Amino acid sequence: MRISARNQIKGTVVEVRKGATTSHVRVDIGGGQIITSSITNEAVDDLGIKTGGKAIVVIKASDVMIAVD
Amino acid sequence: MRISARNQIKGTVVEVRKGATTSHVRVDIGGGQIITSSITNEAVDDLGIKTGGKAIVVIKASDVMIAVD
Amino acid sequence: MRISARNQIKGTVVEVRKGATTSHVRVDIGGGQIITSSITNEAVDDLGIKTGGKAIVVIKASDVMIAVD
Amino acid sequence: MRISARNQIKGTVVEVRKGATTSHVRVDIGGGQIITSSITNEAVDDLGIKTGGKAIVVIKASDVMIAVD
Amino acid sequence: MRISARNQIKGTVVEVRKGATTSHVRVDIGGGQIITSSITNEAVDDLGIKTGGKAIVVIKASDVMIAVD
Amino acid sequence: MRISARNQIKGTVVEVRKGATTSHVRVDIGGGQIITSSITNEAVDDLGIKTGGKAIVVIKASDVMIAVD
Repeated sequence: MRISARNQIKGTVVEVRKGATTSHVRVDIGGGQIITSSITNEAVDDLGIKTGGKAIVVIKASDVMIAVD
Repeated sequence: MRISARNQIKGTVVEVRKGATTSHVRVDIGGGQIITSSITNEAVDDLGIKTGGKAIVVIKASDVMIAVD
Repeated sequence: MRISARNQIKGTVVEVRKGATTSHVRVDIGGGQIITSSITNEAVDDLGIKTGGKAIVVIKASDVMIAVD
Repeated sequence: MRISARNQIKGTVVEVRKGATTSHVRVDIGGGQIITSSITNEAVDDLGIKTGGKAIVVIKASDVMIAVD
Repeated sequence: MRISARNQIKGTVVEVRKGATTSHVRVDIGGGQIITSSITNEAVDDLGIKTGGKAIVVIKASDVMIAVD
Repeated sequence: MRISARNQIKGTVVEVRKGATTSHVRVDIGGGQIITSSITNEAVDDLGIKTGGKAIVVIKASDVMIAVD
């Protein structure tokens, strides 16, 4: 499957923290960058997301903001 | 200003493409990764976003998905 | 690729309307339902999205609201 | 009230799973399709959303992605 | 229709700027505050949104960030 | 830091409700308006968000919908 989302970055899962319905997944994308994702517990189970596993971070361009100092 | 969005990555603007009301801004965050953002033309003008300038990519955790191969 | 987004619905593209930077794509998911998507022109070109083609509509659960009459 | 969101699909609530602050609501929109929504517990209580009730799934076009096989 | 989105603020439309596919609508919510919305041209036409008209700004809680100085 | 998000409204935090991973923060922006935000617990701790504190509500224009009666 190929998806329209413009941002797809490969990395390694470094943390999965499950809440009551929502999990926070942190992915190391290299270069010292960690991306934090908030997804359903169901998705974590369904995809078998676990610490140490390979993962792709996917972000739609319209959800990305730009800041300047 | 500090913001709640969990993902804030520094980079360099490599392209600004203006449409009628919406611009696409591409930011090189290092490690061979380019992030594409879709923001208003107004924001581009207001912040003075231009190719070669420094920028911070900002993404709320609830807008980040995870994929696996 | 499998993605965390909980909503993935197969359908057929019935319209692609390109703007200056943003396209509107409409997908018939059956049962008389049409889903409208707003994505970058670049994504339309990259994935070869065109009227009559098969497509999967993908929506993150946190982007879905519920209304009642 | 009429809303700008392009996607408004009628269905029946088939599951409400409450977490600590966030609920997952699943709505059957017919044709074998179930849509999953992640909303606040407060909204569930306020609108009286419950299994078996009628509901309308509402999604902004800019939150819809397109994938192809 | 009542919707799960936690933020619904009444105001008056002060500007509608149409692009090729996307419009920017600005709504005065009182107290000197203007809210900017980016929606489809189709929605603008469908709802008859025009300068001087009454409107309700609707925002899902998961799309709201918090910043501190 | 200045950010592209078009909507940035100053107010006072009137409630912080922490869940297992997700918090709901309510901000009084004046004129009798309360904005509800759903953010990570981590962000609440990191920014020291607490009842009575000053805060800025930040919303991307593409996440704002318009409704009419």
